[in-house]
Amino acid sequence: MPSTKLISAPEGHISEATLRDTPVNRRQLMGLSVFSALGYSLGNSRHAVASPPGKHLRPWMTSPGNPVAMTDYGQPSRYQVGLARRMRPGLSPLPQNSASFAPLQGMMGIITPSGLHYERHHSGWADIDPRQHELLISGINRSFVRKPKIFTLEDLQRLPSVSRIHFIECSGNTGSERKGVAAPTVQYTHGLLSCSEFTGVPLRVLLEACGADLNRGKYVLAEGADAAGLTRTIPMSMVLNDEVLVAYGQNGEYLRPENGYPLRLVVPGVQGVSWVKWLKRIELGEKPYGTRDEAIHYIDPMPNGKHRQYTSLQEVKSVITSPSGGQILHGRGYTKITGLAWSGRGKIQHVDVSTDGGTSWKAARFSGEVLSKSLTRFEFDWHFDGGEAIVQSRAMDETGHVQPTYAQYRAVRGKESVYHNNAIQSWGIDRNGEVSNVQIV
Amino acid sequence: MPSTKLISAPEGHISEATLRDTPVNRRQLMGLSVFSALGYSLGNSRHAVASPPGKHLRPWMTSPGNPVAMTDYGQPSRYQVGLARRMRPGLSPLPQNSASFAPLQGMMGIITPSGLHYERHHSGWADIDPRQHELLISGINRSFVRKPKIFTLEDLQRLPSVSRIHFIECSGNTGSERKGVAAPTVQYTHGLLSCSEFTGVPLRVLLEACGADLNRGKYVLAEGADAAGLTRTIPMSMVLNDEVLVAYGQNGEYLRPENGYPLRLVVPGVQGVSWVKWLKRIELGEKPYGTRDEAIHYIDPMPNGKHRQYTSLQEVKSVITSPSGGQILHGRGYTKITGLAWSGRGKIQHVDVSTDGGTSWKAARFSGEVLSKSLTRFEFDWHFDGGEAIVQSRAMDETGHVQPTYAQYRAVRGKESVYHNNAIQSWGIDRNGEVSNVQIV
Repeated sequence: MPSTKLISAPEGHISEATLRDTPVNRRQLMGLSVFSALGYSLGNSRHAVASPPGKHLRPWMTSPGNPVAMTDYGQPSRYQVGLARRMRPGLSPLPQNSASFAPLQGMMGIITPSGLHYERHHSGWADIDPRQHELLISGINRSFVRKPKIFTLEDLQRLPSVSRIHFIECSGNTGSERKGVAAPTVQYTHGLLSCSEFTGVPLRVLLEACGADLNRGKYVLAEGADAAGLTRTIPMSMVLNDEVLVAYGQNGEYLRPENGYPLRLVVPGVQGVSWVKWLKRIELGEKPYGTRDEAIHYIDPMPNGKHRQYTSLQEVKSVITSPSGGQILHGRGYTKITGLAWSGRGKIQHVDVSTDGGTSWKAARFSGEVLSKSLTRFEFDWHFDGGEAIVQSRAMDETGHVQPTYAQYRAVRGKESVYHNNAIQSWGIDRNGEVSNVQIV
Repeated sequence: MPSTKLISAPEGHISEATLRDTPVNRRQLMGLSVFSALGYSLGNSRHAVASPPGKHLRPWMTSPGNPVAMTDYGQPSRYQVGLARRMRPGLSPLPQNSASFAPLQGMMGIITPSGLHYERHHSGWADIDPRQHELLISGINRSFVRKPKIFTLEDLQRLPSVSRIHFIECSGNTGSERKGVAAPTVQYTHGLLSCSEFTGVPLRVLLEACGADLNRGKYVLAEGADAAGLTRTIPMSMVLNDEVLVAYGQNGEYLRPENGYPLRLVVPGVQGVSWVKWLKRIELGEKPYGTRDEAIHYIDPMPNGKHRQYTSLQEVKSVITSPSGGQILHGRGYTKITGLAWSGRGKIQHVDVSTDGGTSWKAARFSGEVLSKSLTRFEFDWHFDGGEAIVQSRAMDETGHVQPTYAQYRAVRGKESVYHNNAIQSWGIDRNGEVSNVQIV
């Protein structure tokens, strides 16, 4: 096995091929003996010879660089190529009713940069002028909401707000795995997943301002202003704890247009379709609405011939993002395993990692913030000995729920269910260090 | 006083003038009677009449929108105009040795979108190809570091990492206020301030991997690869607690080129100049290095004729970002006051707000995450009665340090000091609701 191979995402910022063909890189790689000092070993390492400072002058060291404020709004380095959200080939014939996937294999920490946030639209994204956008809050009749009101973006920005870091996941995420597709990369198996700091006004505050009867109203309907007019029912139990937000901010600035600018609903822990984008209407009522997007789509057929409806909670789940499908290990020796865990029920409490296909498990460590209903980053130190391996992660949340195996998942949910798949993902590693999706459904 | 005026940042996404001239806006504003329900009142409010859903059809409601993945890497809405980092006119004749300021008046939550992160360069920003970039770690001699090594970006990405949310502030931030400049907006008084999730390898791990003697070494020197070759001394006490990172990630992706791509030092709680960008060299030694950037710049002249050197900690500080200089209140009645607090010593424990120039103070609430050495967002509910007012915020951190008034600050630091100004900022509000910088130094 060549020792110059890298863990390098196919969608990463510089391609493995590029690196492998670059002489300077070969030299640098051989200098990576850090792990001998850490108690690990690399197959072919040696100590680097320290170059005297200034010996290797580059152009940028010898003349002034680019001016400040060269652009009003900065962009990634031109060398961050290939780290991009992508449509999955063949997913949908209509790019307005499709999805783009976030490049989880190359991302770091827990925050998703807004430029890489996944997309899922039913009728394309609306390019809305906020001066023409209104949010109407009303009830099915005046006994539910006494004083219906219209709010603009500017109105909402004047009100008390909160900012919370939360994950958002499409309930169809990993759904095709459930059907045996075995997508080649983690971008396509799990990339309908992102995490941002959202800023907005608690929906309860707005309802109260409109004279809502919060005892009588049991559900709200949320409707979007895109051509799909997407509608979803949200139970008031979620609204009353102040978690549901009418949000205008994402990662410190306004929502991105693909993510609902100027207004979207934020429903922490709940599937993405309920986070209605381009939000134009909230109605308070007493029963679930059974809309098109609830009666026909986003339902879970069960083994007994019935189906589950309004199953909106995203259960505890995790995935290893590196090494993952399409990557190649750099060689025997120390290998960092890293991934993401999340739960719609609260904080992640524990993540285990297996490198033998689930026979044995060891605890991973958290390498970032652990927040409620947020992505949580984990890492695990592994020694790759050159033999075949299957790596898996298994998360447990603070309520004690544990991510199931596919066997456990199938025993409850049967074979027809596509949405809300939170089963354990398996990545196989062969003797050449090549990683592939070995999900056996 | 016209009741249709808005709190609208001059650098905000839609201009106040635009809104004021738009009939639909006037109608919407009058619909904002939310505060009467909240116990507040607006001068000229009435209840909105609920429009039947679908009455006001817009183009985006009637035909499919834009496709997913229209761009690989998303951008803000085209209506987010004017929310931009800016050079301050007259700050420096040379745009490579200058600064751009973050538009704090229009930002939300605690995360700074990387496109709006402030910049401060001594010789412009280097556009570095990571395949040509090396980080050398060595000692002043072999008794300090037995096995000097060279690391590339790819090497570092394979190592155990952590991700932490931290503020970064230029020690010159608010420095010109100290000299009586009274910049017109919070972007220019306090905008050398940002907050990101940084991902990288603890420097201690790298030093140990190189066989460093962590008892003998008391300081490290960090050097950048730009033409300025900026160098700073970091005490090992900061390195040993694992807070100092050799970072490659920022908000989930690679560092931006203006912020040090491919590698920068992260030194939580410490002035920005020590977070060396385009990091190329770390050397372990036994004494502070007294480099050009430490002996001549970034020093604090004291009243006794001596000066403070290596004063790198950013002390507890806060500022109200709205209402702030250049904004106009929408009218009498409920007015949200919001701002940011931070401390290089740890978490923010408490923020008080005064609306009478410091005579009386009331507690603000935190509206987002409260993390160590991070920005912390606060809000405060105020009733503007149309009289003149001076609004101020005062932060206390978990170590008990309290942000000083200018009088307290001057009593200790004298009149010559420019760096490390953490005194309380005052925004004046006149009877027309116009906000201006009334800092009296």
